[in-house]
Amino acid sequence: MNKRLIVIGGVAAGPSAAFKAKRTNPELEVILFTDEEDVSYGACGLPYFISGKISDRGKLVAREPIHFKKAGIDLKLKSHVDEIDLARSLVISGGEKFNYDYLVIATGARPIVPPLDGVNLEGVFVLRTLRDGEKILDYIKRESPKKVAIVGAGYIGVEMAESFYSLGMKVFLIELMPQILINMDEDMAGIVERYLREKGIEVLTSTKVLGFEGVKKVERVVADKGKIDVDMVLLAIGVKPNSEIAKEAGLALGPKGAIDVNELSETSVPGVYAAGDCADVVHLVTGKKAYIPLGSTANKQGRVAGSNVAGERSVFPGVVGTAIAKVLDLEIARTGLSSAEAKSEGFSFKESVIESHTVAGYYPGGSSITVKLLAEDKTGRILGGQIVGGPGSGMRINPVAVAVSKGMKVWEFAYVDLAYAPPFAPVWDPLLIAAQNLLKEY
Amino acid sequence: MNKRLIVIGGVAAGPSAAFKAKRTNPELEVILFTDEEDVSYGACGLPYFISGKISDRGKLVAREPIHFKKAGIDLKLKSHVDEIDLARSLVISGGEKFNYDYLVIATGARPIVPPLDGVNLEGVFVLRTLRDGEKILDYIKRESPKKVAIVGAGYIGVEMAESFYSLGMKVFLIELMPQILINMDEDMAGIVERYLREKGIEVLTSTKVLGFEGVKKVERVVADKGKIDVDMVLLAIGVKPNSEIAKEAGLALGPKGAIDVNELSETSVPGVYAAGDCADVVHLVTGKKAYIPLGSTANKQGRVAGSNVAGERSVFPGVVGTAIAKVLDLEIARTGLSSAEAKSEGFSFKESVIESHTVAGYYPGGSSITVKLLAEDKTGRILGGQIVGGPGSGMRINPVAVAVSKGMKVWEFAYVDLAYAPPFAPVWDPLLIAAQNLLKEY
Repeated sequence: MNKRLIVIGGVAAGPSAAFKAKRTNPELEVILFTDEEDVSYGACGLPYFISGKISDRGKLVAREPIHFKKAGIDLKLKSHVDEIDLARSLVISGGEKFNYDYLVIATGARPIVPPLDGVNLEGVFVLRTLRDGEKILDYIKRESPKKVAIVGAGYIGVEMAESFYSLGMKVFLIELMPQILINMDEDMAGIVERYLREKGIEVLTSTKVLGFEGVKKVERVVADKGKIDVDMVLLAIGVKPNSEIAKEAGLALGPKGAIDVNELSETSVPGVYAAGDCADVVHLVTGKKAYIPLGSTANKQGRVAGSNVAGERSVFPGVVGTAIAKVLDLEIARTGLSSAEAKSEGFSFKESVIESHTVAGYYPGGSSITVKLLAEDKTGRILGGQIVGGPGSGMRINPVAVAVSKGMKVWEFAYVDLAYAPPFAPVWDPLLIAAQNLLKEY
Repeated sequence: MNKRLIVIGGVAAGPSAAFKAKRTNPELEVILFTDEEDVSYGACGLPYFISGKISDRGKLVAREPIHFKKAGIDLKLKSHVDEIDLARSLVISGGEKFNYDYLVIATGARPIVPPLDGVNLEGVFVLRTLRDGEKILDYIKRESPKKVAIVGAGYIGVEMAESFYSLGMKVFLIELMPQILINMDEDMAGIVERYLREKGIEVLTSTKVLGFEGVKKVERVVADKGKIDVDMVLLAIGVKPNSEIAKEAGLALGPKGAIDVNELSETSVPGVYAAGDCADVVHLVTGKKAYIPLGSTANKQGRVAGSNVAGERSVFPGVVGTAIAKVLDLEIARTGLSSAEAKSEGFSFKESVIESHTVAGYYPGGSSITVKLLAEDKTGRILGGQIVGGPGSGMRINPVAVAVSKGMKVWEFAYVDLAYAPPFAPVWDPLLIAAQNLLKEY
């Protein structure tokens, strides 16, 4: 009899695992459960779906149900898995039992919704699923909100600030911490704050939201510093892993309650894998497990899980905390450790911040770019980098990400052979200027 | 008495060395000789100066003579150095002797001008110096050429094809070899050829130029395959190092007659340095000396030479052969070894070519990108990469350049934590797709 793989979860990691396993071992019976009515969509595209930059819902869907069928994967939409029975190797969904030989848990994460007064008022949204996105769009069409508060100024918060701004709304970006984009350092996040304020977006840091007021629909945000009249609210505080079902089954959890997996994406129980936003991951700089839910990592872990289920041996070594976001014409990126993270991890390090230009100074059309680099005190190992700048800035984080992954030294990076031609970079690329400047400290 | 540094050469490496040395050790007396009337200009910007994209000559100049004066550097314009006397530590210029304690030779390179019939006709140009650029511009203004032949389809050749094309000229790009861009592999160069042809540029490969005809001005290119009526010719066959003066002085030469230097940029004689297009460099993949004249390397070697002269110890480890160019909307980049190079170096390797998209498929405005990756057979070490694609493609070579520099394995690179957000990349960056595809071979 053929072996059966059950996958729980229909976005990113789940489909990646299912398709990779089926492609690699066509003998495998593959069933994929998702409690959503949509499957395999690009959740990271939702801010652009709301802004109208992506007008067609269908474009967001990477694989339609028909693709699952054609691939021979049994897709069970709107099918919540209620329980995993590890001892008997079965899952229970809608009262029915399904045994498995291999299990991939890709249940993702859900938005944190604080138990605030008025949080259930009409017009208070989260953004996680395609349905969430459609609800927001419907509300915008129906109610034509003029003022919106975004609670939480992480990447989703700033991306959604762009979306609402570009729809002509007055945007209040509210953050509990003294700075936005908490995984960037204060100096770098400050550049973004100033930019947003110049654009007319109200950035309210060190501001605690206490609740929401309104008769039926939300009309006000109540914060410690006062009340703000709004027509709509988006909660973008962060996410937590959907790991309860795994925990109840007895699987080991890691940081922030994510399912603990090894570099094969396997959990504490052989044959049971977890991948994506419900799982943890190794941070290659600290060597520790971390919870950094991102679509790129989800796809990698999903593929590795699927590959290993199918009998290959694939290894996902871990992440270095790379992230990128765009807000209007500003690009924001980071990799490795921020200064704040390096400090709290006990690293002794040096840092450098420089401002330069994305292309040769004499070549038209470039933009300003600020680069921050960190290197370990004694070893010179590059620990991390952060970039904020105009078009052409953000993707410069990738050479730093590779350098951090390989433990490159600052004196190597300061002379690394980066591409140069006037339309692409100054003769000293901003990354090299940052590294040269950091090198002076050694 | 203060020590004296003499620098020979006024573009890129020369000024880099002079300014770095003077900044680091202000006690140093620094004299810089250049036989040109211009100094410290961005030679790589000349194609854009000719196209009019950079309208102001002054913009190309990084440091005016006044900057040399302010820095305390004795700049000797239009001063050719005729001889270096290593035994007596002096240089001779215009019959005058100047002794030195340290010498930096940054004499650059000069265009190869084959001794063809008619090569001295009016309207036949090379492009190396700012004066060359101005002569071409003058000729265009005066003669309004309609048809131009570019002899040699390397990076300068294709960049100048853009320049002449954008000025409305009919362009014939003539190459002796069976493909353009000889340091790219044939498959990748083929994409560029097709693109140029679609734009209406005549690409003539495997075509040997025999000479030029015309009464006073050039009127025809005589090639083995026939004659082409033109109003102007640009010779862009390549360059050779201006190393004769060093050779005559007795310094050791490396590949292609470039001055041999170590990782301190020091020649075979202590205290005598060479840097930039007149010097060789270590290729970090082969471990061998190579001659790869580029502005970025020149600036690095110049800085390292200046730093070492001033008593610091700076090391330039070498290059990995990274290069980038733009022709109209196409971006072309390479790093490490091409397949052809890897073969001729005796490497056993695997390769993969994939086509993808620069941004998420559903995000508007992206473009097609083709990525080629090579990895060593047994070790999996990434040996090189090549990229051809629309805007957003070229600078993706840099993460590959870092990976090649650090000997990263294909199984590491296939899961490296590259930045992902829909406006910047698909969830699997094209580099990851290429590496994943290459990984299948292992």
